[in-house]
Amino acid sequence: MVTTTRCQIQTTGQGDVHDITTVVSEAVSESGLTVGVATVFVVGSTAAITTIEFEPGAVADFTRLFEELAPRDGQYKHHERWGDDNGSSHVRAALLGPSLTLPFQDAQLMVGTWQQLVLVECDTQPRNREFVVQLIGE
Amino acid sequence: MVTTTRCQIQTTGQGDVHDITTVVSEAVSESGLTVGVATVFVVGSTAAITTIEFEPGAVADFTRLFEELAPRDGQYKHHERWGDDNGSSHVRAALLGPSLTLPFQDAQLMVGTWQQLVLVECDTQPRNREFVVQLIGE
Amino acid sequence: MVTTTRCQIQTTGQGDVHDITTVVSEAVSESGLTVGVATVFVVGSTAAITTIEFEPGAVADFTRLFEELAPRDGQYKHHERWGDDNGSSHVRAALLGPSLTLPFQDAQLMVGTWQQLVLVECDTQPRNREFVVQLIGE
Repeated sequence: MVTTTRCQIQTTGQGDVHDITTVVSEAVSESGLTVGVATVFVVGSTAAITTIEFEPGAVADFTRLFEELAPRDGQYKHHERWGDDNGSSHVRAALLGPSLTLPFQDAQLMVGTWQQLVLVECDTQPRNREFVVQLIGE
Repeated sequence: MVTTTRCQIQTTGQGDVHDITTVVSEAVSESGLTVGVATVFVVGSTAAITTIEFEPGAVADFTRLFEELAPRDGQYKHHERWGDDNGSSHVRAALLGPSLTLPFQDAQLMVGTWQQLVLVECDTQPRNREFVVQLIGE
Repeated sequence: MVTTTRCQIQTTGQGDVHDITTVVSEAVSESGLTVGVATVFVVGSTAAITTIEFEPGAVADFTRLFEELAPRDGQYKHHERWGDDNGSSHVRAALLGPSLTLPFQDAQLMVGTWQQLVLVECDTQPRNREFVVQLIGE
C-alpha cells in the first residue's frame, strides 16, 4: 500500500534548518501502515534533506561547513547566466541531495533519539517549500 | 508491484553530467503504476546520482566544487595501490552517493520544474554506464 | 511484502569503515524476495552509509577528505554546548547521510563488482552501531 502526503513549510532562507521528524512520524501514524519505508523528498533544486542532532550548535556547525564549501558571496557561473544570486544554493543542495528513505516498524520511524530528519533551506531567499512524504508498506 | 529497468548511457569522463529525468519519467509511464517510488541507482563506484537545475552554469559550479574538494591531479593512496589515476573519482562518488529515491503520483515524478535528476560521471575515463530504475507502487 | 532486519556492528571510532554488503545480501537471500529495494539505514546521528570500492587506499582517501572538510580537532559550537568532542562527527554524518536504497533482482543486489556498501563511523569513540535493512519487494 502507498500513501502520499504533500507538506508545506515556510523557510527564512539560507541556513534555515527545519526539524520535520514529527510531520513524517504523524504521516506514518495516520497511514495505518505498521511496517515499511518513508521516502521524504523536497521539491525544488535549492533545498535538501538529511538527518542531524537537531540542536543549535550542531546545526550551526553544519551551516558553517556549507558556507566554507560553497560561500554565498562566491563567484558562480549560474549567476552570470540568470542574474540569480543563488549559485551557492544549487551547489549545496546538489551535494546534500533532495531525499532520504527511512524505515518504520510498529508504526514508528526507526530513527535514533538524537537523530532528527531535517529540511535544509539552501536558497538565499525565504521560500514556501513543498516536501512529499511517500509511504510504502503494509 | 515492482518493475526493473536497466539503462545504459555513454559518458565522456569526469565532469560529464547527464540529465536522466526523461528516462525515469518514461519508465514510470510505461510501468502502468500510478503512485509509488522510483529508486535510481548507478552501478559502479565512480559515478553518482543527484538532482540539480540542469543548466550549464549550475552544472559547471557543481563540477568546480568537486574539483576543489577532490582535485583530479591530487595525491591518492588508491593510485599507489592499483596504478589507477581515478582516486578523485572514488572519493567524489562516495561523497555524493549512488542512488536517489523519488516519489511519483498520477504516473508523474514529483520533481520541481527546475529540478532534474542527473547521473554524475566522476571517472577520469569515458564509461559506458549502467543505471537501474526500480519502481515500487500500485 | 516487507521484511525488517536489525543488525549490530562494533566500530573502533572515527575513520572506521565497514563493508556491510554481505550482511545486506544475506538479508535479501533469506527474505525469499526476488525483486525489490533494500533500504539500509544507520540509527544515530554520527554514522553514515554510502558505497565505495572497499580497498584500503580508496577508504583512506575518503577518510582524509572528511578530515579536511571537518577536522576532528576543529572548533565546533556543538562542543561548547554539550562538552562533547564529536562536532566533526555530526557534520560529517549529516553531509553523507544515514541511508541508501539499493535495488535487487533475481534475489541479488544490483551493485557493481567493485562497489561495496559501507557503514562509515564518524564518531570519535568506538560505538556499538545498529543499522536496519528494510526490504520491500515480491
